[in-house]
Amino acid sequence: MSGVPRINSERLLDRLRILGGIGRSPSGGLTRIAFTGEDYQARAQVIAWMQEAGLEVCRDPIGNLFGIQPERSEAPVLSGSHIDSVANAGHLDGALGVVAALEVLQTVRDNGIQVARPLAVAVFANEEGVRFQPDMMGSLVMAGGLSLEEALARTDTAGISLRDSLHAEPQTRAIQLNAIKPARFVELHIEQGPVLEAADTQIGIVEGVQGIFWAEVIFYGRAGHAGTTPLALRADAGLAAMSFATQLHQRLSALDDSQLLTIGEIELQPGMINVIPRTARLTIDMRNRNAAKLSEAKGILESTRRGIETAFGVHSEIKPKVDLSPVGLDGDIIARLGALAEKGGLSWQTLVSGAGHDAQMMAAIAPSAMIFVPSIGGISHNPREATHDEDLVAGANLLLDAMLDLAR
Amino acid sequence: MSGVPRINSERLLDRLRILGGIGRSPSGGLTRIAFTGEDYQARAQVIAWMQEAGLEVCRDPIGNLFGIQPERSEAPVLSGSHIDSVANAGHLDGALGVVAALEVLQTVRDNGIQVARPLAVAVFANEEGVRFQPDMMGSLVMAGGLSLEEALARTDTAGISLRDSLHAEPQTRAIQLNAIKPARFVELHIEQGPVLEAADTQIGIVEGVQGIFWAEVIFYGRAGHAGTTPLALRADAGLAAMSFATQLHQRLSALDDSQLLTIGEIELQPGMINVIPRTARLTIDMRNRNAAKLSEAKGILESTRRGIETAFGVHSEIKPKVDLSPVGLDGDIIARLGALAEKGGLSWQTLVSGAGHDAQMMAAIAPSAMIFVPSIGGISHNPREATHDEDLVAGANLLLDAMLDLAR
Repeated sequence: MSGVPRINSERLLDRLRILGGIGRSPSGGLTRIAFTGEDYQARAQVIAWMQEAGLEVCRDPIGNLFGIQPERSEAPVLSGSHIDSVANAGHLDGALGVVAALEVLQTVRDNGIQVARPLAVAVFANEEGVRFQPDMMGSLVMAGGLSLEEALARTDTAGISLRDSLHAEPQTRAIQLNAIKPARFVELHIEQGPVLEAADTQIGIVEGVQGIFWAEVIFYGRAGHAGTTPLALRADAGLAAMSFATQLHQRLSALDDSQLLTIGEIELQPGMINVIPRTARLTIDMRNRNAAKLSEAKGILESTRRGIETAFGVHSEIKPKVDLSPVGLDGDIIARLGALAEKGGLSWQTLVSGAGHDAQMMAAIAPSAMIFVPSIGGISHNPREATHDEDLVAGANLLLDAMLDLAR
Repeated sequence: MSGVPRINSERLLDRLRILGGIGRSPSGGLTRIAFTGEDYQARAQVIAWMQEAGLEVCRDPIGNLFGIQPERSEAPVLSGSHIDSVANAGHLDGALGVVAALEVLQTVRDNGIQVARPLAVAVFANEEGVRFQPDMMGSLVMAGGLSLEEALARTDTAGISLRDSLHAEPQTRAIQLNAIKPARFVELHIEQGPVLEAADTQIGIVEGVQGIFWAEVIFYGRAGHAGTTPLALRADAGLAAMSFATQLHQRLSALDDSQLLTIGEIELQPGMINVIPRTARLTIDMRNRNAAKLSEAKGILESTRRGIETAFGVHSEIKPKVDLSPVGLDGDIIARLGALAEKGGLSWQTLVSGAGHDAQMMAAIAPSAMIFVPSIGGISHNPREATHDEDLVAGANLLLDAMLDLAR
């Protein structure tokens, strides 16, 4: 082998464009919700690329896909991410990690590189959790955080179960859950935030992932005619919910600089301009890198909810949907990534991931790490999501270096 | 004529039940949105009853129906209301005023009563304004408050115009807008509030109708990933809208006891649990019996909106949809109604209407008044809307007395 092997940057960028065309609307947004036709079309494309790289394609019962080097039975150094998307998304979130891992395996084959440990690529099913919740479902089930039976029983808003939405691709070999046990896991992903760009740094090495708490909060009041009920006699579920959101935001803003709160959905019933809302349902997304602070935030949520019940004369309930503790990633791999970035002449820094990623699930079953590349303007979950080509290539080459290093 | 004529209470109650069955769902709620199939079915029933009462049925270009005594060309004493409903409504709001006015005309005919001025019954189109706004559209157009052309150009959320939703009933004679000019107008309606029941009073004589201001307020922020944007760097349109609602409610609660505020709809875009809302749209329904206070409330709305723009780093706009000043009803008819209620041995009191009614539109073109009967529990716009039978009958008999008195 003469010199350091490098990935084929043209093929990497081409494949990102090809994959980015699947599920794209005329206005440019990508919608490739897990287990829909667009997702299956994208999976078929990735399966074809796995076959092109000489990999055997396996599929576990939750729909995770694996491209493995044939005739190697040892625990592999695994890399991958997801190819499902939210609605009206960009083309890099998840897709970069899959296409780059494929590129590493293809480069290894093209260059006839022999590795002590086998390498493998993973496509985790349903990372976004849009249609079936929770998110990161494929890697969560693989890591034992949710039973297969429970996951398959989840239904979408139309009442269709995940079990009925799962189709086995004929080109794949069915394997048991956990038939593939990673020795190490590394995921390449776009940052989806503004930190690396602001610091003019090419590579982020992720030290950990924030804890995430998702819930639905529902307020029950009394409907009534907008023109005939004095304010003091109302049990207005809508105002209760909006005041709850306002107070919770004020209190969490004061808690901790790293505490996040997003209320992305609110729905009033019956939802008419001249009817006092009977019920209001809103969603909560709270994140913190610090487990104690996140727990404190949950306490504040609860006391705020109780205070609103009293102040507005309404009842309420909270339905937790996702509750993930902050995750620390593997110190040894983090150190190796830093050394490899240094050796490759790349600017780098460590950071904490704000978004949830499959790597945090893999961390429960194998030493795991993540590489971030900068997001232009910090934009993600949006058609304007973008990363400079040279950063995409630098990230994929660092992934190649890391996988070869870990497979030694 | 021997004794005072009385309406046929059995027929009145029967017809309320028959009309209440049109558009009713198995769960009991009535949905008869203006210009839908259910509304046309109810109109056909009322047209049949008008014919049964020997009335000629006329229809103006906005869809208002009139049952007039044939061969009488003088300006009539008019009574009526509406038969369209909100979604999941009760069976009395509007319907009582139409069925009772029909009952008055039928009683006059059955008893061979001769009147100096002719009597007529009106069914005003689209009083609720659910599908096509504004509400009270039929009477508003008749009173000259909105041009016919503008009204016909209004579209529903599916983009279908009112013009394309209007079907001329074949049994009706087409008349020009304002071909029928009322000499006096009286409307019987349920109170839709708790005042009469609480005071144990059978009859409410309406002195005036609250002013109403309807608007849509839209906030424009920046979408983003829920996990990667620090709270301090967000332009969260959803939190801006919810804080706006909370602050406006606090400030208007302190303004004036009779000030009302309802926020019945709010919609976030893109509306996903883990995406910071890019835009938020909410509706405002503000009412006050006092024109100066309502105007002050509009000023508070405006200053609150500006404050939120600054505090949350968002832009916003306000789109007024309905802006009706408080209306005083006719002192002479109010006095006559009080005297007639007294003579009939009914308990009565005056009050201000919280809801908007067709009578307030008619007040612009003729001396007008309204009679209220109690709503059990103050409930309306709800399947549990109800009034005791004896109160329905007492209200209809007072309407008969009033129309005969005004037609003398």
